[in-house]
Amino acid sequence: MKKILVMHGPNLNLLGVREPGIYGRNSLASINEEIVLKCNREGMDCVVYQSNSEGELISRLHDAMNQFDGVILNAGAYTHYSYAIRDAISAIRLPVVEVHMSNVAAREEFRHTSVIAPVCAGSIVGFGKNSYLLAVDAIKELI
Amino acid sequence: MKKILVMHGPNLNLLGVREPGIYGRNSLASINEEIVLKCNREGMDCVVYQSNSEGELISRLHDAMNQFDGVILNAGAYTHYSYAIRDAISAIRLPVVEVHMSNVAAREEFRHTSVIAPVCAGSIVGFGKNSYLLAVDAIKELI
Amino acid sequence: MKKILVMHGPNLNLLGVREPGIYGRNSLASINEEIVLKCNREGMDCVVYQSNSEGELISRLHDAMNQFDGVILNAGAYTHYSYAIRDAISAIRLPVVEVHMSNVAAREEFRHTSVIAPVCAGSIVGFGKNSYLLAVDAIKELI
Amino acid sequence: MKKILVMHGPNLNLLGVREPGIYGRNSLASINEEIVLKCNREGMDCVVYQSNSEGELISRLHDAMNQFDGVILNAGAYTHYSYAIRDAISAIRLPVVEVHMSNVAAREEFRHTSVIAPVCAGSIVGFGKNSYLLAVDAIKELI
Amino acid sequence: MKKILVMHGPNLNLLGVREPGIYGRNSLASINEEIVLKCNREGMDCVVYQSNSEGELISRLHDAMNQFDGVILNAGAYTHYSYAIRDAISAIRLPVVEVHMSNVAAREEFRHTSVIAPVCAGSIVGFGKNSYLLAVDAIKELI
Amino acid sequence: MKKILVMHGPNLNLLGVREPGIYGRNSLASINEEIVLKCNREGMDCVVYQSNSEGELISRLHDAMNQFDGVILNAGAYTHYSYAIRDAISAIRLPVVEVHMSNVAAREEFRHTSVIAPVCAGSIVGFGKNSYLLAVDAIKELI
Amino acid sequence: MKKILVMHGPNLNLLGVREPGIYGRNSLASINEEIVLKCNREGMDCVVYQSNSEGELISRLHDAMNQFDGVILNAGAYTHYSYAIRDAISAIRLPVVEVHMSNVAAREEFRHTSVIAPVCAGSIVGFGKNSYLLAVDAIKELI
Amino acid sequence: MKKILVMHGPNLNLLGVREPGIYGRNSLASINEEIVLKCNREGMDCVVYQSNSEGELISRLHDAMNQFDGVILNAGAYTHYSYAIRDAISAIRLPVVEVHMSNVAAREEFRHTSVIAPVCAGSIVGFGKNSYLLAVDAIKELI
Amino acid sequence: MKKILVMHGPNLNLLGVREPGIYGRNSLASINEEIVLKCNREGMDCVVYQSNSEGELISRLHDAMNQFDGVILNAGAYTHYSYAIRDAISAIRLPVVEVHMSNVAAREEFRHTSVIAPVCAGSIVGFGKNSYLLAVDAIKELI
Amino acid sequence: MKKILVMHGPNLNLLGVREPGIYGRNSLASINEEIVLKCNREGMDCVVYQSNSEGELISRLHDAMNQFDGVILNAGAYTHYSYAIRDAISAIRLPVVEVHMSNVAAREEFRHTSVIAPVCAGSIVGFGKNSYLLAVDAIKELI
Amino acid sequence: MKKILVMHGPNLNLLGVREPGIYGRNSLASINEEIVLKCNREGMDCVVYQSNSEGELISRLHDAMNQFDGVILNAGAYTHYSYAIRDAISAIRLPVVEVHMSNVAAREEFRHTSVIAPVCAGSIVGFGKNSYLLAVDAIKELI
Amino acid sequence: MKKILVMHGPNLNLLGVREPGIYGRNSLASINEEIVLKCNREGMDCVVYQSNSEGELISRLHDAMNQFDGVILNAGAYTHYSYAIRDAISAIRLPVVEVHMSNVAAREEFRHTSVIAPVCAGSIVGFGKNSYLLAVDAIKELI
Repeated sequence: MKKILVMHGPNLNLLGVREPGIYGRNSLASINEEIVLKCNREGMDCVVYQSNSEGELISRLHDAMNQFDGVILNAGAYTHYSYAIRDAISAIRLPVVEVHMSNVAAREEFRHTSVIAPVCAGSIVGFGKNSYLLAVDAIKELI
Repeated sequence: MKKILVMHGPNLNLLGVREPGIYGRNSLASINEEIVLKCNREGMDCVVYQSNSEGELISRLHDAMNQFDGVILNAGAYTHYSYAIRDAISAIRLPVVEVHMSNVAAREEFRHTSVIAPVCAGSIVGFGKNSYLLAVDAIKELI
Repeated sequence: MKKILVMHGPNLNLLGVREPGIYGRNSLASINEEIVLKCNREGMDCVVYQSNSEGELISRLHDAMNQFDGVILNAGAYTHYSYAIRDAISAIRLPVVEVHMSNVAAREEFRHTSVIAPVCAGSIVGFGKNSYLLAVDAIKELI
Repeated sequence: MKKILVMHGPNLNLLGVREPGIYGRNSLASINEEIVLKCNREGMDCVVYQSNSEGELISRLHDAMNQFDGVILNAGAYTHYSYAIRDAISAIRLPVVEVHMSNVAAREEFRHTSVIAPVCAGSIVGFGKNSYLLAVDAIKELI
Repeated sequence: MKKILVMHGPNLNLLGVREPGIYGRNSLASINEEIVLKCNREGMDCVVYQSNSEGELISRLHDAMNQFDGVILNAGAYTHYSYAIRDAISAIRLPVVEVHMSNVAAREEFRHTSVIAPVCAGSIVGFGKNSYLLAVDAIKELI
Repeated sequence: MKKILVMHGPNLNLLGVREPGIYGRNSLASINEEIVLKCNREGMDCVVYQSNSEGELISRLHDAMNQFDGVILNAGAYTHYSYAIRDAISAIRLPVVEVHMSNVAAREEFRHTSVIAPVCAGSIVGFGKNSYLLAVDAIKELI
Repeated sequence: MKKILVMHGPNLNLLGVREPGIYGRNSLASINEEIVLKCNREGMDCVVYQSNSEGELISRLHDAMNQFDGVILNAGAYTHYSYAIRDAISAIRLPVVEVHMSNVAAREEFRHTSVIAPVCAGSIVGFGKNSYLLAVDAIKELI
Repeated sequence: MKKILVMHGPNLNLLGVREPGIYGRNSLASINEEIVLKCNREGMDCVVYQSNSEGELISRLHDAMNQFDGVILNAGAYTHYSYAIRDAISAIRLPVVEVHMSNVAAREEFRHTSVIAPVCAGSIVGFGKNSYLLAVDAIKELI
Repeated sequence: MKKILVMHGPNLNLLGVREPGIYGRNSLASINEEIVLKCNREGMDCVVYQSNSEGELISRLHDAMNQFDGVILNAGAYTHYSYAIRDAISAIRLPVVEVHMSNVAAREEFRHTSVIAPVCAGSIVGFGKNSYLLAVDAIKELI
Repeated sequence: MKKILVMHGPNLNLLGVREPGIYGRNSLASINEEIVLKCNREGMDCVVYQSNSEGELISRLHDAMNQFDGVILNAGAYTHYSYAIRDAISAIRLPVVEVHMSNVAAREEFRHTSVIAPVCAGSIVGFGKNSYLLAVDAIKELI
Repeated sequence: MKKILVMHGPNLNLLGVREPGIYGRNSLASINEEIVLKCNREGMDCVVYQSNSEGELISRLHDAMNQFDGVILNAGAYTHYSYAIRDAISAIRLPVVEVHMSNVAAREEFRHTSVIAPVCAGSIVGFGKNSYLLAVDAIKELI
Repeated sequence: MKKILVMHGPNLNLLGVREPGIYGRNSLASINEEIVLKCNREGMDCVVYQSNSEGELISRLHDAMNQFDGVILNAGAYTHYSYAIRDAISAIRLPVVEVHMSNVAAREEFRHTSVIAPVCAGSIVGFGKNSYLLAVDAIKELI
């Protein structure tokens, strides 16, 4: 059975609390539940992970190399400057799907650049929690 | 029954012929078939449309206003400079999902900017023909 | 009797429908009526024209060369990137008055640049439908 | 009876003398006469004012707040860098119409940026002395 | 017998009329005659085509794929921003020779960038109508 | 007894009137009163000064050299471009504390640059009228 | 009783050791003592915290949400690029006062940009250890 | 007898006091004396003028038009942004020689741009008070 | 006996696994062995350290201050944006030699900037594992 | 009989040896032979010249002024930065045709700018050795 | 007796021939005569030198170190990019006066930057051959 | 026996004389001696070469192709703009090690870019004369 890792970056632990006008009112726990459910329905195993630490996200990506078949990654604000996470994605040679809940192109200038997008398989942006669920479908095709 | 319009911009009529290393070997006709099938399975009506002309794409978007509930748009290279298409999307007040088959972030510099993304609901990028099929799921949630 | 051509670019056919907060609630038809009336009052003939197509706008400008004494042009979003329309304006050697209904300087960054302004006689910006009526007065002096 | 203030910024006192190829041969006095005449014809009172000093222009704008219903402003070269005049315009909450005699878009690069345009009601550019007369019509509609 | 397509972009239909100081006094018809003559002399068939419409130029390029052995293209002002035409050139995999009559490097800044040059075989710039005739020789070697 | 000069730049005379959403409803007179009171409480003499004129602000800074021990300066919009005021600050060799009532970093792009900050002792930004009162404490330590 | 959190970012643990010409000779411990004393004198509780880790600073900000009434934050070099800390500040909806000991505007170019300033309440910059003490006064007014 | 006007811009009244490491220890009065002496020796009349006000410098330039044969101008920091002074120089059609005492190219980035240089006859930069004396020789040749 | 610290930043733990075309097939362990051997041969003690965490790298640099005579640092992707690591290097006042295995100048644009190079003693770039061994020789001369 | 000078800049002496994938396998000698032959066939005299030295290329251009009727110039990498060669071209007032064998627009960013193109008559780019032969035809028309 | 070296860079050997509209009709020889004469009158020895070669200019500057007391340098177009000449000027520790005959600030953009100005003593720009003569006076004061 | 060429670019002949604060007090001759000695010790032949001329450096690189196994190159200021030297390095297909004595990253902005680094094997920067000796070790491994 295929296994995927779903990673949430900095501040995503505050989902439902943080700027609900932008990110909606669902907590991370409830979103994770939906993701796991969906994965199972699609016949895949799924582990969820959140960290505010760039270094921990990198290490978790490394560990994924031998444990998972693909990664869904919402790198939060690290998306915009973490070349170290970018290098980790390149290094592990797993398909990684970039996810954002809000439409970053419609927000501040700095959110228009993703330094990780060029090394991801693809990106799904702007559909709220549904971005994650679509990513499950997307990654299923890739692995 | 909800109706969606799937629009393909310039050069996408050459799918399967044009740079298959980047865009795959499926013809536009065969991809359209899959999209329509998927829409029907999801209980939605679907019309497909392709044009190489910026003006025709704009006029088609206008017409969509009273005929459709949502739009899936792969604007091709117009993505990167057509502020006129952007204005059309803003004007019609329908949810529009931006789609790209290739991972534009991994290609030439000029493809890293989408002038239409800020006025779309969201974007799905890099999954080949599957980008369209995911967009069907995405738009279903929005309409 | 002097004749002027009033040209409306992309999306302006949606006036009254499109973003009324920015463009007001008058339809293009009603604005055109006022323009024609004003022209007649000022002793000038007037033809109105709208197109979403860059190529058609260019061809119409060419045709104007032998049929009209001046042009009032709201190029819509083409204002910001259509060097082809700019070249058409240079080529026809008629006085062209650039018009915008909204104050483009107070909107998105990309609207701050007009690539056609340097080859127009002058610009009238920000007065809603009145921008067109002022342009009638302006062009009357020029022809 | 409505009252408007017509303000001329730096170097405009030299009109008729300064670069007649660009600004024409009319003196400021004769242009002011035409403006006043036009205002009266349109049933408005009009005061004209010229200063080379940024600070005086700001103070005059402040004073206008309680004495006038609108302002016509040719800020001369201050147009391109005086954020202080911009702030004054924002502060007084009167409609201000920006005016330029020459087509600034067709001249040096630095003249292509107006830092005051975003806080003005609109702009009339490139019609020589007629720019002022059109501005009288424009402001009449705004006040 | 080899066949080439000679394409003229926007405003080139005005040749001989438009800015003769820059483009010379020959009409497009007379230039086309010389091109066809030269092609025939070099043992090649030649079709000429002009359009002001970006979309039509793209569609014509697509059609050329199975009908011609090479293309000579003067894209006019589209040269500077039409990534859609660029994509069409890439897609059709025919040798395309870029042509300009005037020395674009000696004119306005915006004319210094060609977005199509990177996907053309080569460029011939600045020799008036002779640019086309040289391109006939150039493409003869390529096909 | 130490003496400080509190300088208010352009448009600050309109405090309480100008954009109260940004600058609050206190008039400059009432803020000045609080500043003087606070200075006295801290055992310092204090003179307040306002001018809309860049030149007068410069001259006042020069005069301060022999009359005051420190300066609190809200240069208003001159903050963003007056290299002449910057030179005056460098020249007088008194500690100058830069003050802004609003959080300029959260406003328009042009307000993000302070050309005077590099030659000031420090900056206090964003606390409304309290910015001035904090500056009194700050300068007390410096002189 | 109001409670505030004082956070010191990377390298601030070396205060007194690190570049004393820029940061002074006081150790972080002695500065913390003064801050706590001042808070107590002002009737506020105060906790101090230092970390070199971006992730830990983010997590500590999250925790503060329910434990403190305001935050004083010297984010050290993270000030200039940590959009993740910026997001944390936005998320927790507490007033945050940005503090820097040195006058960053007078140092290297990269220190002139603060990516967190736009989401802080205000900034106090350049007064050495006094920057923290002034921030205590500033935050007292805000909470 | 030819007459020249020597103008000193903002902060130059502090010469001898202000940053003597950069500008030397001579007062403006003593430098003016040397300039006048030199002018007389060269058979020219000379008037000196200093102002911190941009507007006054502009007005003085205007007055010069009918009273002087040439101008020596050290515009101080206005050199770097006063397009209004630039316009005044263009307007008066007298030869103006730009002077700087310090080598501005070796100082801060913002001092590397002179917005007035393009409309001056020439520039003499970096020779301390001698810059003025050389300018006397230079202008003698021009008038 | 002199002691040096050899630090490896993010993703370097994957050496031998990660993109062997760029970084070679040696594991970090085997490279560390060679470094230690070389150090010993050169009469120096050597400790090796790897972390993916920016904060831990900073803290380790702090600790080095009293334990080592010099540092060899391959900061991985943090090289390109970690001003916090840069500050740590400045703070500890030990000679630090920057090392990269690949020739970063020949790779992606973002790798062309090193924000730590200005505060390092020197850099050795592009020689694979030999970069470290050369750095041992380099630092021996510096300490 | 007309005489033309064919100049080859730096590294072109290595043709056939240097990067044959880009420049082909013909030696400079064999290309020169073809050029001379072609010139003779066209009834023109031809001298060929190669130098790696910017100064020698400039001096050779000067000498050409009185000895030749036109110049064909492949300035190699000097194309991208030698304003001194540009000035030489302007100075000699002969028609100069710029030539490149490879399609520079399809290579590294720095090769996209030609500082000499604005002062040349025209450019022929991307046709291998044929670029020179086409230039012979081009210059024949110009002289 | 003091000795100065007067150096003329690339293309200045063509003076009187090259673009007389910009550089005047005097030959370099006649200008050199005037310079030598002026030097002698001022009691200084003078050697003149011209080269089109960057390397020779550098070597000549090196030689000057022990033979001359000062240098007058018109580096021609090398002014705008020769960091190697800049380094030579820094290295020789003689006062160097930069000279330009035309007002470079009023010409093409690329002429607005002088990479050598920051290491010269000062600059004299725009006075035709008189620039050199003024430089003789300037350097006399410096040596 | 392997042979290497050590090349010194412009101004390096002044080593020991030129800015000893930056480059140290060793003459080029004494450094060359150490390099030769080191090469011999490492069992390699070594030739040293210095030139101030870009063209000569290029020609010397060409000659090296058949005479040497590798090159150590300190291109001096040409490092920052000589695309012609860069092309020479690419052309000769020998391993070239870039060397700088000073830490260029810690000096002026223009020294932060090396246009030759992308085509060199690697770089050694900042270790004074030791940079050359380390390069001997580096190149030994490469050839």
